[in-house]
Amino acid sequence: MSARRLSGRAVIATHNAGKLAEMRELLAPFGIEAVSAGELDLSEPDETGTTYAENAAIKARAAARASGLPALADDSGLAVEALDGAPGIFSARWAGKPADFAAAMARVARELELRGIGEDRRRAHFVSALVVAWPDGHEELFEGRVFGRLVPPRGERGFGYDPIFLPEGFERTFGEMSSEEKHGIDWRSARPSPLSHRARAFLDLAHACLPPREG
Amino acid sequence: MSARRLSGRAVIATHNAGKLAEMRELLAPFGIEAVSAGELDLSEPDETGTTYAENAAIKARAAARASGLPALADDSGLAVEALDGAPGIFSARWAGKPADFAAAMARVARELELRGIGEDRRRAHFVSALVVAWPDGHEELFEGRVFGRLVPPRGERGFGYDPIFLPEGFERTFGEMSSEEKHGIDWRSARPSPLSHRARAFLDLAHACLPPREG
Repeated sequence: MSARRLSGRAVIATHNAGKLAEMRELLAPFGIEAVSAGELDLSEPDETGTTYAENAAIKARAAARASGLPALADDSGLAVEALDGAPGIFSARWAGKPADFAAAMARVARELELRGIGEDRRRAHFVSALVVAWPDGHEELFEGRVFGRLVPPRGERGFGYDPIFLPEGFERTFGEMSSEEKHGIDWRSARPSPLSHRARAFLDLAHACLPPREG
Repeated sequence: MSARRLSGRAVIATHNAGKLAEMRELLAPFGIEAVSAGELDLSEPDETGTTYAENAAIKARAAARASGLPALADDSGLAVEALDGAPGIFSARWAGKPADFAAAMARVARELELRGIGEDRRRAHFVSALVVAWPDGHEELFEGRVFGRLVPPRGERGFGYDPIFLPEGFERTFGEMSSEEKHGIDWRSARPSPLSHRARAFLDLAHACLPPREG
């Protein structure tokens, strides 16, 4: 069964400036006119889901209903395997309000130490669930993951938990990478293989739901 | 630093009959007079934590404060690795109210199928966090895990997700095992090695916080 395609205008259902910039950048080549939930003055629904996919669907669905436009939402987080997937869907909540990710990363380190989890057992992965919801109730889900391990914080780039995440096969953390290296998609390649969780989910979304690239 | 020991009376901070029976059985040899939260008519606090340990602490703390006695609480769940640790701390919530674990197990199967996760990638583990809280605020945390994989439901024993969990090295699911095999602790052994997550956490708790066994 083929997925439904986007065209014209769509809402990016996020109030997070970092995610909004990243999603606009990803959507740019496809001629989709992206408006943000903030620009439309949409309220933020409670994220009461129990999975990334549920929370992304809650956000996309609420924005589609309120705007009458298709809406794209991301829910993402860091799953630390020795912490049973925590902070997971609570990754943002561990940072508190206003968000303090230095404190959140320190908490991850503390929880690992409390349990005596040594450096060789600090495997983790980032997850991104992207949901596109249409006003008539139709929905499409795409998930991406990137596996790696946790190290002491390095680098000032990216956001969230990026400084402690060392992707498998690399020597620099997400906090030390350019945005191009972290989530760029090489569309000229026959088989683009972006690094980040969100770019991986987006690549599947693009194949399924976006019109051909422009220019 | 040595942990604080229990003696005399203690509250088992659960309203779940299955957990209560299992914890009474585990505590029986230690001469602790265990009363349940239900017998003391204590209310159930909201489990607003983001980890098993936090939710166990919320329950133990509330019962200790309300009763003036040390209280023991368990928070536990099934972490499916390819689902990023879901249902995890929401394991009970996936069953709904009144609890329908056949539906919850069917949902796990559906989420795996939706993502094309084949039988060889269905690794999962159970987690139990046990917290003992004293009325003065002192707390001790113990965690246990048992690793295995998910299979179609087999067996009528145990509770919750037991019928789909095949522990590593065994050919029967938790739903097919006797309670003795699943969580019995052989105290005559110099190194008891119980199977279940809760019994493993309890063994550490017993070493740290319980008086010598009686009889």
